[in-house]
Amino acid sequence: MNACVLTIGDELLQGFTVDTNSAWLGTTLLPYGIVIQKQITVGDDIQSIINESHKIINHEYNYFFITGGLGPTHDDITKEAFRQLLDDELVFNKQYYVHLKERFEKISIKMPKINESQAMVLKNANIIPNDIGSALGMHYFYNGTHIFIMPGVPSEMKKMIKKHIIPTYIKTVPEEHFITIKTAGIMESKLAEKVSGLMDKYSKSFRFAFLPHFSGVSFRIIKMVEGNELQIVKDEFYQKMQPYSYGFHNDTLEGIVGQKLIEKELSIAVAESCTGGLIGKRITDTAGSSEYFLGGIIAYSNLLKISLLDISKQTLKENGAVSEEIALELANGIRNKTNADIGLSTTGISGPVGATETKPVGLAYIGLVTPNKSIVKKYNFDFGRHLHREMVVTSSLNLIRLYLEK
Amino acid sequence: MNACVLTIGDELLQGFTVDTNSAWLGTTLLPYGIVIQKQITVGDDIQSIINESHKIINHEYNYFFITGGLGPTHDDITKEAFRQLLDDELVFNKQYYVHLKERFEKISIKMPKINESQAMVLKNANIIPNDIGSALGMHYFYNGTHIFIMPGVPSEMKKMIKKHIIPTYIKTVPEEHFITIKTAGIMESKLAEKVSGLMDKYSKSFRFAFLPHFSGVSFRIIKMVEGNELQIVKDEFYQKMQPYSYGFHNDTLEGIVGQKLIEKELSIAVAESCTGGLIGKRITDTAGSSEYFLGGIIAYSNLLKISLLDISKQTLKENGAVSEEIALELANGIRNKTNADIGLSTTGISGPVGATETKPVGLAYIGLVTPNKSIVKKYNFDFGRHLHREMVVTSSLNLIRLYLEK
Repeated sequence: MNACVLTIGDELLQGFTVDTNSAWLGTTLLPYGIVIQKQITVGDDIQSIINESHKIINHEYNYFFITGGLGPTHDDITKEAFRQLLDDELVFNKQYYVHLKERFEKISIKMPKINESQAMVLKNANIIPNDIGSALGMHYFYNGTHIFIMPGVPSEMKKMIKKHIIPTYIKTVPEEHFITIKTAGIMESKLAEKVSGLMDKYSKSFRFAFLPHFSGVSFRIIKMVEGNELQIVKDEFYQKMQPYSYGFHNDTLEGIVGQKLIEKELSIAVAESCTGGLIGKRITDTAGSSEYFLGGIIAYSNLLKISLLDISKQTLKENGAVSEEIALELANGIRNKTNADIGLSTTGISGPVGATETKPVGLAYIGLVTPNKSIVKKYNFDFGRHLHREMVVTSSLNLIRLYLEK
Repeated sequence: MNACVLTIGDELLQGFTVDTNSAWLGTTLLPYGIVIQKQITVGDDIQSIINESHKIINHEYNYFFITGGLGPTHDDITKEAFRQLLDDELVFNKQYYVHLKERFEKISIKMPKINESQAMVLKNANIIPNDIGSALGMHYFYNGTHIFIMPGVPSEMKKMIKKHIIPTYIKTVPEEHFITIKTAGIMESKLAEKVSGLMDKYSKSFRFAFLPHFSGVSFRIIKMVEGNELQIVKDEFYQKMQPYSYGFHNDTLEGIVGQKLIEKELSIAVAESCTGGLIGKRITDTAGSSEYFLGGIIAYSNLLKISLLDISKQTLKENGAVSEEIALELANGIRNKTNADIGLSTTGISGPVGATETKPVGLAYIGLVTPNKSIVKKYNFDFGRHLHREMVVTSSLNLIRLYLEK
């Protein structure tokens, strides 16, 4: 079944608000077999809403989802547009007016005059309750298309879809239509090369997508034909992507690392220079991380590297702070200071300044010291300060993962 | 001048990626007098791209911006669609092929086979360089409409617009159409109350929007009538919002704090418990932060609080780690260990577990010790683990700002 989404609002076109409703509708409806074919945004303008909606309802979509333009501050333009488009009538709903007034009174607020218009509803539409806000939703079944008119406020729209629209109008049982494999440590085009054979093999029944991110490349397998074995195909891709594949769906590198540390009963501590605390932040994003994460030292200045982590002044002078030697000393230092099983360190040049004749912006070293080995890896991520730091963190977490998987 | 935006990608329609390109184009182009009238998203499908683009180029838009469908993993469908639509030809650009190969060699990677297609370009189009990625942009002037074909990766698209498209094809001098005032330490409805009189006063010529975020509430003033004094109105609002207002546009709390630390020649170090490194991360997001940020200690476990920051076992036992007393000892501890002018600390219960009979999830203490005063603030942010941590960091930075502004 196919669908079209129309989102309404000047604030969306002018970019003051990012339209997240469309994406949410996409992922939420997919398991019900509803595939969005097109998404359109227009401004707060009745004629634009009519023009676009006219084209859509004459296009044989099964579903047409509209969000926005319902509130009093938008002059209720969406209702007026559909009144004209479907030759309907706006009528006063006394019952809802009283209910609305009571809702305001309950929070000790006199209902603002502008909210009164929200009790005006389209006569031929089915009303969809709004459990959070004051703008009602509306449903038409017109010309073979289910039309849903909803408020633009994400929380109100989501509640309407989940609590009212799916149970009443969609009904079908959701089915897993896609699986995401998470990878780290490999770039998109290399990963694509690795699985191109498998993609060809399954191209008739599945669609594939690469989703690159600084935290790694996600690979999505989308089932296009009913009855195919998503689970089996998934495993085949996962194996082929080893050792880069580390999880599925919403798994995170820090979450997987955490699980493995718990399994192996190992603790970890970090000495962060260029990442400035971001590794600690990422590790402690996971609830329960106190079980394996002791903490760390943000040794941003050389002074702190020496005073808090016993880095040798001599090594620092000879090699500079961004060097293999210092990465190793930092990892050893934090491990000794905290008695952690694993010591991890970062040192690098995130830029925009800080480069030297021999050391470019983007250079980074990651040190990992464990009970049975010490390693230092050298990287070069010259993609700006923000990405440099994120990629150093991702590489650090991946280095720990690979060690723990051995 | 009006414009239309077409974004391409199954991942957008299926909601795996939120389309932020459209919003960015909206705000970025507005100062150049370019108003986006419509935004459309279609999937990775040549015929859909052709159909929509055909309608758009026959609609007298001044500008038509297309993003996505250019990479090798998208089968370069956008190029093929415009080849068909504009009856053009795909030709091999040897020069770019060599350049691309060299770029890969520079990072010691053999160019993957699938990247080769990126050297195929549309014959009649003007090439727009890609300074970040490998997919070239293209420009046509067709039927009165400037058509820009750009990659979907946000960083690549943005660079193309700023560095190449605006200087070469748009040229007009940007005029300020809106101003954003940044605030921290006040909730949206309270801020609205504070400025409701001013909003009424200027409602004829300006539009206003509150944009709440865990890093504070932004307030946007949008000029609706030419020739109005945005600068004067801005200052009036800014004053009215004191002491919560701290900056404009893309100013960040950490950036403002950094500036003031430099001005006053003060250094800072942090002792983070519940925030796990996020304060360090936020401070070092600002390039040049090494001038005032020495570093810190992530004292996530009580063991590290004692061993690295000399927290008294007695205080810990009597008050618990999440207490006014420990916040103060942590801030004093890091200040003494690092000789920083300012010591900042956090301790709290981010949840979901960790609450006790007397201490709920959401509780947090922030300690600030400076050469002339010591303060501890108590907060309760019960909005989930992620928001708790972010809001503790924002409050910490705001606390430093208020101290430095005195």
